[in-house]
Amino acid sequence: MAELHLTPEDWSKKKERYWPTFFNTISGPRSVVMIGTQDGAGISNIGLFNSLVHLGANPPLLGFILRPTTVARHTYENLKRNGCYTINHGLQSEVEAIHQTSAKYEADEDEFERCGWKKQAIAGFDAPFVAESVIKLGMRYVDEHLIPQNGTRLIVGRVEHVLIDEQFVEEDGFINTSAAETLISCGLDAYFKYESLKRLPYARP
Amino acid sequence: MAELHLTPEDWSKKKERYWPTFFNTISGPRSVVMIGTQDGAGISNIGLFNSLVHLGANPPLLGFILRPTTVARHTYENLKRNGCYTINHGLQSEVEAIHQTSAKYEADEDEFERCGWKKQAIAGFDAPFVAESVIKLGMRYVDEHLIPQNGTRLIVGRVEHVLIDEQFVEEDGFINTSAAETLISCGLDAYFKYESLKRLPYARP
Repeated sequence: MAELHLTPEDWSKKKERYWPTFFNTISGPRSVVMIGTQDGAGISNIGLFNSLVHLGANPPLLGFILRPTTVARHTYENLKRNGCYTINHGLQSEVEAIHQTSAKYEADEDEFERCGWKKQAIAGFDAPFVAESVIKLGMRYVDEHLIPQNGTRLIVGRVEHVLIDEQFVEEDGFINTSAAETLISCGLDAYFKYESLKRLPYARP
Repeated sequence: MAELHLTPEDWSKKKERYWPTFFNTISGPRSVVMIGTQDGAGISNIGLFNSLVHLGANPPLLGFILRPTTVARHTYENLKRNGCYTINHGLQSEVEAIHQTSAKYEADEDEFERCGWKKQAIAGFDAPFVAESVIKLGMRYVDEHLIPQNGTRLIVGRVEHVLIDEQFVEEDGFINTSAAETLISCGLDAYFKYESLKRLPYARP
């Protein structure tokens, strides 16, 4: 193996999309989810995110990273307005329709319709779920943390609803996303399937 | 399919480790990396994290989530002290040795030695790399964001060094982590292998 050693001098040399792709993919694949919101007129939006992180179980908190709001960010505007949003895992078999939700539609276009997804509602909860998804979370907006170095934000939300096909919940509470065949992605355009290697016992010194 | 609808009333009923496992796995698998640091006496620490997120490419910023500092967090103390840390992707074939780095060792134990990893150094950079790793990042600590709801922290760092086997860097800057056979995990104990499904063109309405 030939190990390269790259430093800021290397990435100071601009090469089109080279360095954005490089740094967006070097952290490796993560689960990719569709985030559903709606605006004041009830028009629905779906955004695609692979920056979901677990923040805690009691209360159940999840975070995701939102890019700078220098361009229109319908997900951000809607979730701040209504205080809620949905997180929907997609399936490996639906990768094209999932990727399509990353396209930039106008604010007055219903992205569920445009991308071919059915809406599912919970009474009193002002954000649409993706009906086809087998693992869906209804999230209450809690807080945001601005990253001043580049204008991105960590959005923190609390889980209020879980809609899940019961066959994927194991006896100890483990969610078998691998059996559900949920999708993972790396960077903006690379999608992967995955399968279980092993579950290991609690590690002790 | 039988869709369960769970709400806070369900998870208010304590069931041992059930709900922590449930909420730790529901966001799906993510890349799992070993974070290397050293203390003032040069004793090395490795921590295992699957909360790595891409924050931006210019400057190249990555974040990860650190659990509450109510117990000793050697990674946190060391990275604050020295201002730097390393991020090292592990390989699927090394899953047991990688999982072992999640064990809680005493502060005076060298975790590289205890877990069977070789150290690699860069002159002037006060954190050890995992020599066996094929994708390694030398990170400069930038900032932290405390999540007041549960005491976790988002640690923000800037990439200063990339050490990577050149065969995994594609012409457009895409890092082929799938060819490198890096590891992904879900929750605290479930590990997965993954393979490419497809790369899709930029999505347009």
